Amino acid sequence: MTVLVLALLFMSLTTAGSVPSDQIFQYIEEHQNEYVQRLKDWIAIESDSNDPEKRHLVTNMMLLAEERIRTLGGTVEMVDLGMQELPNGNKISLPPVILANIVKDPKKPTVCFYGHLDVQPAEIEDGWSTEPYILTEKNGNLYGRGASDDKGQVLAVLNAIEALQKHELPVNVKILLEGMEEVESTGLKELVEERNSTFFSDVDHIVVTDTAWISSKPGITYGTRGNCYFLVEVECAKQDLHSGSFGGLLHEAMNDLIFLLSTLADSSGHILIPGIYEAVAPLTEKEKKLYEGTEYDLDVIKAKYGIKQFINKTKEELLMQRSRYPSLSIHGIQGAFSAPGTKTVIPAKVIGKFSIRLVPNMELSVVKKQVTDYLNKRFTERNSPNSFKVTYRKGSKSWLADPNEPQYLAARKAIKRVFGKEADMIRSGGTIPIATDFQELTGKSIMLLGIGGPDDAPHGQDEKISRYIYIEGTKLYAAFLQELSTV
Amino acid sequence: MTVLVLALLFMSLTTAGSVPSDQIFQYIEEHQNEYVQRLKDWIAIESDSNDPEKRHLVTNMMLLAEERIRTLGGTVEMVDLGMQELPNGNKISLPPVILANIVKDPKKPTVCFYGHLDVQPAEIEDGWSTEPYILTEKNGNLYGRGASDDKGQVLAVLNAIEALQKHELPVNVKILLEGMEEVESTGLKELVEERNSTFFSDVDHIVVTDTAWISSKPGITYGTRGNCYFLVEVECAKQDLHSGSFGGLLHEAMNDLIFLLSTLADSSGHILIPGIYEAVAPLTEKEKKLYEGTEYDLDVIKAKYGIKQFINKTKEELLMQRSRYPSLSIHGIQGAFSAPGTKTVIPAKVIGKFSIRLVPNMELSVVKKQVTDYLNKRFTERNSPNSFKVTYRKGSKSWLADPNEPQYLAARKAIKRVFGKEADMIRSGGTIPIATDFQELTGKSIMLLGIGGPDDAPHGQDEKISRYIYIEGTKLYAAFLQELSTV
Repeated sequence: MTVLVLALLFMSLTTAGSVPSDQIFQYIEEHQNEYVQRLKDWIAIESDSNDPEKRHLVTNMMLLAEERIRTLGGTVEMVDLGMQELPNGNKISLPPVILANIVKDPKKPTVCFYGHLDVQPAEIEDGWSTEPYILTEKNGNLYGRGASDDKGQVLAVLNAIEALQKHELPVNVKILLEGMEEVESTGLKELVEERNSTFFSDVDHIVVTDTAWISSKPGITYGTRGNCYFLVEVECAKQDLHSGSFGGLLHEAMNDLIFLLSTLADSSGHILIPGIYEAVAPLTEKEKKLYEGTEYDLDVIKAKYGIKQFINKTKEELLMQRSRYPSLSIHGIQGAFSAPGTKTVIPAKVIGKFSIRLVPNMELSVVKKQVTDYLNKRFTERNSPNSFKVTYRKGSKSWLADPNEPQYLAARKAIKRVFGKEADMIRSGGTIPIATDFQELTGKSIMLLGIGGPDDAPHGQDEKISRYIYIEGTKLYAAFLQELSTV
Repeated sequence: MTVLVLALLFMSLTTAGSVPSDQIFQYIEEHQNEYVQRLKDWIAIESDSNDPEKRHLVTNMMLLAEERIRTLGGTVEMVDLGMQELPNGNKISLPPVILANIVKDPKKPTVCFYGHLDVQPAEIEDGWSTEPYILTEKNGNLYGRGASDDKGQVLAVLNAIEALQKHELPVNVKILLEGMEEVESTGLKELVEERNSTFFSDVDHIVVTDTAWISSKPGITYGTRGNCYFLVEVECAKQDLHSGSFGGLLHEAMNDLIFLLSTLADSSGHILIPGIYEAVAPLTEKEKKLYEGTEYDLDVIKAKYGIKQFINKTKEELLMQRSRYPSLSIHGIQGAFSAPGTKTVIPAKVIGKFSIRLVPNMELSVVKKQVTDYLNKRFTERNSPNSFKVTYRKGSKSWLADPNEPQYLAARKAIKRVFGKEADMIRSGGTIPIATDFQELTGKSIMLLGIGGPDDAPHGQDEKISRYIYIEGTKLYAAFLQELSTV
């Protein structure tokens, strides 16, 4: 509560843009229960995009959001993306994408918010403490599937627009909302490409509101690592064999695969594939300083996740490893015995899976060749009669923006105003393909300004958003739009 | 058909025991459709011991067999083994074990046949060409779950007894049939121990009729490898982590586990654990010769299972590797990502599974210590902060009989008479715990004389027994009992 009181005190002392922000902030404060009720209505729709049986609920969710945007006076196009072919060959409709437009004054800058309204699967049987599709408030948190990822974030933007409209919306706002984010944004890239010269032509800034903070401080993400995913397949027989009848007789596929996977990285995770670190961007003093200001408490994270010891010693080293250096993780093996129990099988065909996180300036095609050449060489040296194949499965490049672009400055000011703190400037360890895609397809300035809390469990059980962050986040988006009109 | 005709010709020329075998064999020939019908009746009962829901069907199967044995004039005790506790804590009845006794003449030797009447699960959806529980004859084969493993083998014994009884049963016969073989013979070991001084006191020979041939020639198994199963667990966090957020920051459990598994054997499967080969029994010239007479066509097996190249060059080397040398197989990893797809997870806790096939004179306790010490040492050298544990999970010793014991001589003569061929004398690569158990608990002579064909697919789809082997196998058991009365 102290934080809230301080924040309120702080707010009343500051103004920005043409409208006193304390009036806007007061309006938001006064309407917070209404905002929570809206979130409750949205959470109630089980818009799980993974489950084809629930596809109509995703569409229902899109229609509900359309109605909300129309209430704000926006014009809304519900774009039909056509059909999706399921793995079983059946075809079902993709949910519509919302392309919305609120107020049009060519003299003002235009910002486009991106968010999504579909959610990950959730069942109370998964171990939820509350019904996942009934928004439930406990100890200042609002629990429900999609509360943080991403319905709460989208609603905070819409609520902020509404609050500003009581006085004046200081910039033009466009909104892009999709319903297939949790299943790789099927069809979105094509749509962005198609609308690049129309919907996006007058857009100056794109803000992705689908990210989380990494500490108790609000964060702005200006870069992400990329990823490239490989499958290594070894086959020793046409069918699984009994280890009694065949053990010792043949070169077992698992033995070959385990060997290959063991040659990828050393005990400290250093990647052993020749050339892999060659392209990594050199570290400048200026960049180095950026990590110092980021909050990242090693002990808290170690305790939270039960990690005994990090590979790097300092916070800065760790943040740099996560942001600007590649890493390799072995995810698992398909085709071997993975269930509990003690099956005595010689698996016939096994597929090892690993991926390498990419950083500027690593190129997918180069990494693909380095990995393939290396594994081919190691397998050839092994002299195994088994069949062997490395497949590059999928990947996306890293993304890095200039954190001094105007919308970043506006966001940093807004964060300072609302929260009284400097923003964490984040380069995400993960991959956010939408950032890379927007950047490559539109060439616009992209920023990831989300209000997911650091412990919201977005894909897990008991997903939540705190009421505090939901409401202060609404203020943040309002303040951001005000600041954006002045930068 | 040529084989059948030759076999028939051969039979009519030979006799043994006090009754002309051609009369017995003719009787069996004439009643073969009746035997097939009996098998059909038995196959129709879905006596799947894996599924608690079908437990009553296993019991029904035991009752049907009881009725059959009573028809032969046997006294039958249906032994109640009590309750079984399921993983969910529920308790269900174990199926009864049949202990039967046919004819009692203290002057004659007594042979006890062991078999089982439960089956592995089977559904037509698994890929069967016919309904698994409807015995279906196609191209001389009788398809159905349990046809080979083990209902067909048990019925062949009972049919042989019936055929002999038309003249004279030359030896005393006892029968032990269980209904839990496919789930590790729950309760059987205790029963054998308990009845050692009663039911087993006058037993001279124990014949396990639950084995398969390894070629087109009938085989007698006189040894099996043992096995010891290990779990290697590495844990790097309390929960699975995202490879974007955490890749490169910590010592990943999979990387440690893959390393440990890679140190177990070299590229030729040679086990790298120090001392593991020390106890292996030395090879004598006499033993060496036994492998020469065994039929094992490397090219046929390679083609059948899609194996490109064996580690050993000659048939004898291969048979020796399979029979008298240890081997190590890595079965899989539990806790990692094993499904199709491209999940970017850092698994928190992974359990590698491998087992070592044991041969005479390797001791479980010694191997357990060698493996544990070795992996502990390798893990310590790696200097990983993760938690690590090697667990010995289960195991059984190897078993080896003297292939010149009287019942082996009787079986070899019987095979020569019925099939006109020398028996394959087999040391099985797999583990048949029942053989070790009988040997250790009763001290009797144990022999594995089964009539499973080399391609019967006992645990797979389209399990079958050929009509030819089912009927000739019935003759074999009859001839064996005759020969046994004369050795």
